[in-house]
Amino acid sequence: MGTIITLMTDFGTADGYVGEVKGVLLTETRGATIVDITHDVPAHDVEMGRLTLARYWRRFPAGTVHVVIIDPGVGSARAALAIASEGQFLVGPDNGVLSPALLMPGAKAVALRVPAHASATFHGRDVFAPAAAQLANGDALDSLGSLFTSPIIRRTPEPRRAATGEIVGAVIAIDRFGNAITNLVAARGGVITVSGKRLELGRTYSDLDEGELGAVVGSSGLIEIVRREGRATDVIPLARGTPVSLR
Amino acid sequence: MGTIITLMTDFGTADGYVGEVKGVLLTETRGATIVDITHDVPAHDVEMGRLTLARYWRRFPAGTVHVVIIDPGVGSARAALAIASEGQFLVGPDNGVLSPALLMPGAKAVALRVPAHASATFHGRDVFAPAAAQLANGDALDSLGSLFTSPIIRRTPEPRRAATGEIVGAVIAIDRFGNAITNLVAARGGVITVSGKRLELGRTYSDLDEGELGAVVGSSGLIEIVRREGRATDVIPLARGTPVSLR
Amino acid sequence: MGTIITLMTDFGTADGYVGEVKGVLLTETRGATIVDITHDVPAHDVEMGRLTLARYWRRFPAGTVHVVIIDPGVGSARAALAIASEGQFLVGPDNGVLSPALLMPGAKAVALRVPAHASATFHGRDVFAPAAAQLANGDALDSLGSLFTSPIIRRTPEPRRAATGEIVGAVIAIDRFGNAITNLVAARGGVITVSGKRLELGRTYSDLDEGELGAVVGSSGLIEIVRREGRATDVIPLARGTPVSLR
Repeated sequence: MGTIITLMTDFGTADGYVGEVKGVLLTETRGATIVDITHDVPAHDVEMGRLTLARYWRRFPAGTVHVVIIDPGVGSARAALAIASEGQFLVGPDNGVLSPALLMPGAKAVALRVPAHASATFHGRDVFAPAAAQLANGDALDSLGSLFTSPIIRRTPEPRRAATGEIVGAVIAIDRFGNAITNLVAARGGVITVSGKRLELGRTYSDLDEGELGAVVGSSGLIEIVRREGRATDVIPLARGTPVSLR
Repeated sequence: MGTIITLMTDFGTADGYVGEVKGVLLTETRGATIVDITHDVPAHDVEMGRLTLARYWRRFPAGTVHVVIIDPGVGSARAALAIASEGQFLVGPDNGVLSPALLMPGAKAVALRVPAHASATFHGRDVFAPAAAQLANGDALDSLGSLFTSPIIRRTPEPRRAATGEIVGAVIAIDRFGNAITNLVAARGGVITVSGKRLELGRTYSDLDEGELGAVVGSSGLIEIVRREGRATDVIPLARGTPVSLR
Repeated sequence: MGTIITLMTDFGTADGYVGEVKGVLLTETRGATIVDITHDVPAHDVEMGRLTLARYWRRFPAGTVHVVIIDPGVGSARAALAIASEGQFLVGPDNGVLSPALLMPGAKAVALRVPAHASATFHGRDVFAPAAAQLANGDALDSLGSLFTSPIIRRTPEPRRAATGEIVGAVIAIDRFGNAITNLVAARGGVITVSGKRLELGRTYSDLDEGELGAVVGSSGLIEIVRREGRATDVIPLARGTPVSLR
C-alpha cells in the first residue's frame, strides 16, 4: 500500500472537481492510497471543516497526508500551506481550517509556491494536490516552500464561569443526526439548561425514552444535546452559538 | 492489495465520523483496502440497512470484512456482533441489520467484548472498527468474543395468497430513482394492482413510454413499480408497506 | 497498486447498487484500485455526466479504466460500449455520455456482448463492471465485442457571433456552489450580459466584494457567473440554457 492521502473538501461530488483532484494525486504519486473523508462540508464553512478535521487527523498512521480544501478565499492573497505536525502532513489554505494541526507543539508550516499556470479558482487541483503528491512521494516539507510563521488560527470558544456559578458555553456544531455538540466538557453529572429546557446529564441514548430529549457525553468528550431515535433540533431551537449552561 | 473492508453506515459524511473509523481501520491493519458502500442509509433505518446489505455482501471476494453500523441502540445492552458466514466476515450491532448473513447455513456469531474506554455513543470507532481490523489481520473469529446463539433476526415479510387467488405482497423499499421495490417474485407475467392502478408486468423500462408507469422484474429478481425516465413515487402513493398484488 | 478503475454513476449511494458494482469489480480483477468520482449525477442526466467526464478522465494515469453509468435506456436496444482513447479505457452506455473520449482522434469503440443472464435493469453490475474488470486485467479491447463505428455523440453547443458583434453563448451547467458555467471561452477581458445584468469579466473571486455577482474564468478555461461567498443562482435567474453574451 502506498502513502495514505485523505481528502476533505466542500466540493460536493456532483461536479467532477473531486475526480480531477484524485486524477492529479494518482498521476503524480507512485500508488498513493486515497481515502475520502467527506466532500460534503457545507460550502465555504471553514469552521465546520476545522471541527471535522480535529476529529480524524491524528487517527491515521504516521506519514499520512491530509488534504483539506475549504477555500472561500481561493485566488486571493491568502497563503497556501503545507504542514508537518505530530508525524502527519497536511495541505490546505491559510484560513484557520488547519488550526488543529497548527496548534500542536512542534508544528511547522511552509507557504506553497503557486505555479504561474494555476487556475485562480481551483488551487485544489493545481496547488494542493501536487503538494500532497510531493509529500506522499517523500519530498521534504522545506522543499515545497518557505517557512510560514504567522498562520491564521481559529479556536473553539472557551466556556466561561458565570457569577451564579454556572458554566456557560454554546453549541459549536449540529451533526447529521440532529445532535447539537457543545463546547462543554463532561463533568461527573449535572443539569444542562438550553433553549429553556433543563436536562439531566445522562450517560447515553439508552437512558432516554424514545423521542426524549437529553444531554450525553459524546464521542469527543464534549456534552451533546440529543434525542433518542430522533433529532434534537426538531423539538427545541438549536444552532451554532445557542447558549448552553451546566450547573 | 490488503484485505478488503467494506463500510456501510448511517453517519452521512459531513461530520468526520467516517474519517475516524477509517483512521482506526488503517492504523490497526497492515494495509487493508477500504471500500465505501454508503454512508447515506437514512439515520437509524435498520430495515433499509438490512435490505441494502442483502444486495452486496456476497458479491465480494472471500475473506472480505463487512462493517455495518446502523446502530440506534448504541450504548444500550444490545450485543455487538462479529459473524463468519459464507466465507465472509461481518461486524455490527445485534439489531437485525446483519440478518442476511446470520440466516445462511453454517453462520457463526460471537458477541464482541466492549473495551472499558469505548465511547458510549460511538461503538463504530471503538468497538466495530477494531474488531474488523482484527479479522482483516487474520485473527480467528473465536478470539474476538464468546459464541452468541440468539441474535435478532429480521426478515422481509412473505407475500400471501388471498382467497381470490391473488398473491398479496407489499412495497419493501423505495430507491433513489423513485422505484418501489416489492416482495413479489417474478412470475411469467401477470397483472399488478397497486394504489388503484393496474399494471401489466413488463420486461424492462424500454417497454414503457416516457413518463409511463409500469411493473418490471428488478435486478434482485423482485417486482418493482417503476416509471420510465421519471419517479413512480411522483404519480401514485407508494411507501414501505403499500400493498401490491399480483394476479 | 492494481489497475485504477474509476466510477461515475447516477445511482446515489443509499441503495446498495454501488456496492454490488464494486463487489463485482473486486471479485473479477486481481486487486484493482477503485476510485469513486461521484454517484450523485442527477438521475438520468446524460448531459451532466458528459460534462463531468470531460473534466477528469484524462487526468488519470495511462491504462485507467473509467466506468460511466448514467443509463436511462438500460434494457433497450441501445449499445453497451467499451472504448480505448488517449491511452485510457472507458465503458458505459451508447447515449452520448462518453463523447469526450469518442471525439478524440484514434478513439476506438466496441459494442459489448450482453450475457443472457444480465438483468434487464442493471447493466452496471452485469455488463459494464465485468467488461471493466476484463480491461483492468489486460484483456484486449477487441476481445470484448465487435467494432462499433456509429456511437451517439453529444457536444457542448458552440457560441455564435451576433450581427451586433457580441459573442452569444449559454449556461451549460450549474455547479454545487451555485456557479453557472458557460460555453464562452475567456478573452482578455470584456463585459458579460446575463439575465439583464452587466458584469465586468474579472480575474477571480477576490476581485469581488462579499456577496457581489461577477464573471470569472473558471478552472476549465470557460467563463463562469459567480458570486463571492454566495450562490449566483440565488440572485439572478440562471439555468442550463440561459443566454450569456460577451462583448
